[in-house]
Amino acid sequence: MGNEPKIFTKTYKWVGTRPVRPDGVDKVMGRAAFGADYQLPGMLFGAVVRSPHAHARIKSIDTSAALKLPGVHAAVTAADFPDLPSEVSAGGEAPVNFRHVSLNVIARDKVLYEGHAVAAVAATSPGLAAEAAALVTVDYEVLPHVIDVLEAMQPDAPVLHDDLYTSGVDPRPTTASNVAARTGFTLGDTAQGFAAAEVIVEREFKTEAVHQGYIEPHAAVATYAADGMATIWCTSQGQFMVREFTAKLLGMDISAIRVIPSEIGGGFGGKTTVYIEPLAVALAKKSGRPVKLVMSRVEVFKATGPTSGAWIKVKVGAKRDGKLTAGEMVLKYQAGAFPGSPATLGGMTGFAPYDIENASAECWDVVSNRPKCAAYRAPGAPMAAFGVESVLDELAQKLGMCPLELRMKNAAKAGTRALYGPKFLDIGYAETLTAAQVHPHWSMPLGPHQGRGIASGFWFNVGGPSSAAIHINEDGTAEVVTGNPDIGGSRASMALMAAEVLGIDYAKVKPMIGDTGQIAYSFLTGGSRVTFATGKAVCEAADATIAELKKRAAKLWKIDGQHVEWRDGQAWSTLDDGTDRAPLPLAKIAANASKTGGPISGAVSINAAGAGPGFGTHICDVEVDPETGGVTVLRYTAIQDVGRAIHPAYVEGQLQGGAAQGIGWALNEEYVYDAKGRLQNASVLDYRMPVASDLPMIDTVLVEVPNPGHPFGVRGVGEVPIVPPLAAVANAVSRATGVRIDALPISPPRLLKKLVDAGKV
Amino acid sequence: MGNEPKIFTKTYKWVGTRPVRPDGVDKVMGRAAFGADYQLPGMLFGAVVRSPHAHARIKSIDTSAALKLPGVHAAVTAADFPDLPSEVSAGGEAPVNFRHVSLNVIARDKVLYEGHAVAAVAATSPGLAAEAAALVTVDYEVLPHVIDVLEAMQPDAPVLHDDLYTSGVDPRPTTASNVAARTGFTLGDTAQGFAAAEVIVEREFKTEAVHQGYIEPHAAVATYAADGMATIWCTSQGQFMVREFTAKLLGMDISAIRVIPSEIGGGFGGKTTVYIEPLAVALAKKSGRPVKLVMSRVEVFKATGPTSGAWIKVKVGAKRDGKLTAGEMVLKYQAGAFPGSPATLGGMTGFAPYDIENASAECWDVVSNRPKCAAYRAPGAPMAAFGVESVLDELAQKLGMCPLELRMKNAAKAGTRALYGPKFLDIGYAETLTAAQVHPHWSMPLGPHQGRGIASGFWFNVGGPSSAAIHINEDGTAEVVTGNPDIGGSRASMALMAAEVLGIDYAKVKPMIGDTGQIAYSFLTGGSRVTFATGKAVCEAADATIAELKKRAAKLWKIDGQHVEWRDGQAWSTLDDGTDRAPLPLAKIAANASKTGGPISGAVSINAAGAGPGFGTHICDVEVDPETGGVTVLRYTAIQDVGRAIHPAYVEGQLQGGAAQGIGWALNEEYVYDAKGRLQNASVLDYRMPVASDLPMIDTVLVEVPNPGHPFGVRGVGEVPIVPPLAAVANAVSRATGVRIDALPISPPRLLKKLVDAGKV
Repeated sequence: MGNEPKIFTKTYKWVGTRPVRPDGVDKVMGRAAFGADYQLPGMLFGAVVRSPHAHARIKSIDTSAALKLPGVHAAVTAADFPDLPSEVSAGGEAPVNFRHVSLNVIARDKVLYEGHAVAAVAATSPGLAAEAAALVTVDYEVLPHVIDVLEAMQPDAPVLHDDLYTSGVDPRPTTASNVAARTGFTLGDTAQGFAAAEVIVEREFKTEAVHQGYIEPHAAVATYAADGMATIWCTSQGQFMVREFTAKLLGMDISAIRVIPSEIGGGFGGKTTVYIEPLAVALAKKSGRPVKLVMSRVEVFKATGPTSGAWIKVKVGAKRDGKLTAGEMVLKYQAGAFPGSPATLGGMTGFAPYDIENASAECWDVVSNRPKCAAYRAPGAPMAAFGVESVLDELAQKLGMCPLELRMKNAAKAGTRALYGPKFLDIGYAETLTAAQVHPHWSMPLGPHQGRGIASGFWFNVGGPSSAAIHINEDGTAEVVTGNPDIGGSRASMALMAAEVLGIDYAKVKPMIGDTGQIAYSFLTGGSRVTFATGKAVCEAADATIAELKKRAAKLWKIDGQHVEWRDGQAWSTLDDGTDRAPLPLAKIAANASKTGGPISGAVSINAAGAGPGFGTHICDVEVDPETGGVTVLRYTAIQDVGRAIHPAYVEGQLQGGAAQGIGWALNEEYVYDAKGRLQNASVLDYRMPVASDLPMIDTVLVEVPNPGHPFGVRGVGEVPIVPPLAAVANAVSRATGVRIDALPISPPRLLKKLVDAGKV
Repeated sequence: MGNEPKIFTKTYKWVGTRPVRPDGVDKVMGRAAFGADYQLPGMLFGAVVRSPHAHARIKSIDTSAALKLPGVHAAVTAADFPDLPSEVSAGGEAPVNFRHVSLNVIARDKVLYEGHAVAAVAATSPGLAAEAAALVTVDYEVLPHVIDVLEAMQPDAPVLHDDLYTSGVDPRPTTASNVAARTGFTLGDTAQGFAAAEVIVEREFKTEAVHQGYIEPHAAVATYAADGMATIWCTSQGQFMVREFTAKLLGMDISAIRVIPSEIGGGFGGKTTVYIEPLAVALAKKSGRPVKLVMSRVEVFKATGPTSGAWIKVKVGAKRDGKLTAGEMVLKYQAGAFPGSPATLGGMTGFAPYDIENASAECWDVVSNRPKCAAYRAPGAPMAAFGVESVLDELAQKLGMCPLELRMKNAAKAGTRALYGPKFLDIGYAETLTAAQVHPHWSMPLGPHQGRGIASGFWFNVGGPSSAAIHINEDGTAEVVTGNPDIGGSRASMALMAAEVLGIDYAKVKPMIGDTGQIAYSFLTGGSRVTFATGKAVCEAADATIAELKKRAAKLWKIDGQHVEWRDGQAWSTLDDGTDRAPLPLAKIAANASKTGGPISGAVSINAAGAGPGFGTHICDVEVDPETGGVTVLRYTAIQDVGRAIHPAYVEGQLQGGAAQGIGWALNEEYVYDAKGRLQNASVLDYRMPVASDLPMIDTVLVEVPNPGHPFGVRGVGEVPIVPPLAAVANAVSRATGVRIDALPISPPRLLKKLVDAGKV
């Protein structure tokens, strides 16, 4: 903690400092308003009726008994939603299958997983709503189900969708199956690469579905006025996403919906789609009253999207000196009940840290009777990296090489062609390896039953549409308005960048998160895009504001605008006409705004290009208890090229959070199903996420190789740190035990069995 | 009702139509959220301790007993507010004496009127807060008080402020008095004008203080976070005003306060300042919890600002043919406890409808032990017009002329120099007289005890700083965001103008009212400025949006931007290069926004100049019951030059509302004080506002002489219609009874006494 960045290029007055977090006090004091904190006069409470079956046909739904209960005001089923056509792409140009989103939000003819919503009711109290939900009678014809990816791919597996034909295989099958798609990437000639190899390592891996585990369950309050206007207060990673998705699912105009974002108690990708929001609007429409829907923790586990469990095969060839000659990956990812696993992203990212001339990835997207997977921090990448980084560790062992050295020898750098297509520009992967090598952690001695693992990870980071507006107030203070929920500190980073560009005190700049009615469109908070893309919009809005401030100064001075410069928050006259003009501070220009043309603002909307790829390297020390199979993480260091840390404390927090989640994924977390396809551990007691006492303080090192595509060099930060931990932990356990870990989680019973089977204990 | 405009210049697709009101459904269904409708978890309820005395020195305030009551979390007095210097002008450049605002919000050393706030408490329930307020002990030294304007001007009157020296008299007095200021206007030479007159009428008039009578009492919920950030949800005529005033009164940065406007249940000028908002923030700061403060109706009457009661003398001279040769006015207006009556505005407006070569106005601003007056629809103008229009009526009687003809003969028109300074450009006063003359009302026969009055009125209408942003959504619908509370239909008019300029369907355009954190500054909703000034900003924002849409179309067509035109909501290529390019509708350009540069928006901030002066002429028929003095309004017609009615139904509503309030002012409303200076009728039962059964349907005629300063010709609308009614009603009663009415209200006992005194009954 607190390590200063390793590679600076330039220092700034505000960028790179650590002021008190603007969202901190309210959150610490319990005053921040989250999704469930909204209430409106006359508000009803909703409850969702969910399938008890993993796979069943809905023969009928009868809500009449529920509706007869006094205080019950509405019930909705799929019949209240338009039956959307199979392929619809979003207005925002992201290809989303809204039919699938709709069927996931409320089942129409079939339920596809335990917990799948079939109806919803609204009543005057939460208790009454639950009672009413229990009175909804659903007549099911139970169907055989399938949970596992490999089983779901079998020809005789129960088929979830009778209109799903595998895409990406030639010829496209004419028989419906659970295999939604095959995608792939090829670079060079892998056959030739493996022929040239002197050492080859090939292994299969398995990971389980894990949930993002955000602390705040999904919650929404919706109103629907008689003139067709809806307002939704909710927790999400994107108010504009909720607006668009809800509009599509209910057949409404986008302008007929206003979405007001609450604070968000974590999302990690899990709040990038809708679940209850369209139900709340439909119930509000039917009842004519505001409706609040809040998921229970059980509902979150059963009916929102974890990330895919995966089956992975990785094969790597190398020369004796460690130079990689070829790499191959096959990925089979659970999509859950509807197509759309991040298998392709796994294929794109797994080999990305390395310069391998011959490489390929084959990615399979497979549906089964599980909740539809959702994004989870660097979607698809951790599982692929688990395979690749484990195989590299084994390769280093075989070659008798330092695993850091092996990676350094093959590290991608500027000019390296990635398997997924592009040639990298300035990147800082090698710099993270160097930072690892010089870090005291790397050279600390280990004791018995202890092992040290190292692993790296990659994420693209993305840009996309973002908007920002800066308003200069009458007293020279400023508002910075953006359209992205603040998950990882974006309020602070937006205000810091605005203060830096404007040249005014950070304390005078107030960051604000706009609702969909008030600020122009921004794509959601995800993909590690906000500080980069929305930050770029903020910098451009500040430039626009300065242009306006200069014009106003020129008017006050009655000189031509070309003779005005902006420096240190003041306008300076460059006109040499004998008149002495003292510089005009922003506050003075602001106080005279009415005289010079009205309020002073700058607003921009951009489609941000130039996101900088991010790389991280993690070091993990573990101690294994050979009697119980228990693994203790002794020490953990997360190193990452962040481009430029705008507010380093938040950035370090992102690295720590990603590492903690990755450690949980590696050691304990999994979805456990019974024979009937029912989730057995849908609670935070039984679904074992790491808590503070499970983890050491996670050390962080911020490497700063500036991204040339951003004014301050920002790369994305939030996703990379969950990519290395799975392999870093597994490699550490492998080295501590001498048994290669090929399946997660490495929970005590699983590890103990593995050690016993290997004759190690 | 429903009369179509009389003078069109151009017809539009949306401007001038009457779609369903965007705020209508929620308001009619009881679902619109007003100031008191907000609630937050852990919220406390505030109560204000108010002075029982009209004038007293505060010797001490003891809140300890209140604070000992379990559940009471905070108490504030003036000691919790900075002691502001005497003269501070607003950052927004409007000259406001914030020391006076502060002392009015919470008394420091003296209480100056019954109901003056001296402390405030916050507790867990409204009942407990009231109990706590009763436990606050204030030790007063009661002082002699003065209520009446003329008495307050006497040398021996009790003096409210020992630092108040009359401004505008030369030399400025060195003895403190209740006379705050003298202002005046002169045109030509009145002595010469009166010398040339063949008939002179001179009279004194008196009007009483009347309250705006908005249906919604003041209400606010405030939070104050430990990092110094406050949020206020409240009802007001200007969220930016509340933000600035609260910041000034609490010594905060403007950016440290966010004000979220609720719906507003009427303001009419009465919500253009703060009363409880700074108290709520101070209580929230002290208690660390959200605090709600809601005024009772009694508090609204006792402690918010009515408009001034006034003493007026008007003298007019004319030739036998009716040509006015001179006019003189002396106005003495109650300011209430602090300086700032609208006396000057009375002096500026009274003679404005007329072309009088020699005129003068002398205006006196006088404090007394009444609540500080606030703006009320065309502040200061109705009382002055009451005097002028009554005198003109009497003059017409003396000359044996039709009162309409007398006015027509002297009507101001383009080129007329107004007493207050400017030469009018295009104005429509004469057109309102013509419309009155041809209206069937004017020629309807009258029965016994019936009389017909006519009167005219003027209001400047103002412009000023306004901002607007238009956001084009992914599906081609749009949001129009402005920063003004919607009091009289601005949502509809903003959306209509945006739809008209953009060329898209009104139903696809959603108007939004931004909070201070989200939209750039706009001056408050008042002065009849919003449809003009903010509407002008909306038109410019739409132009900016079209410019961007044309650029995007050019990108999609891969042609130069100069070859793109915008017409009927579509981009048209004008490039004649053999390629056939179908026009691109807005929705299609919107769907491709990401490909062409990101979200599409247009945002502007302006300081709108070019407001168009407004004139109205009202006709009123009454019947007087000679036995009771009761007056029944039989028929009422309000005619006004509105420039251009964007949504005529709202405009007609404004005319009807203004007339109704003016009739109340004329017939019944007044503040009744007892000998101790305590208000005796602080309830809507005792303060007699007209209700539906008191009034006939008020007919309206919209005259449209376009204002050249606005793209659609808009003038202000809301204030003019309260200017004529006082005189229109009084003239009708004068003609019905043969007794000149020189004092308002014309309540039954007052009129009966007048008729008895005159020997008429």
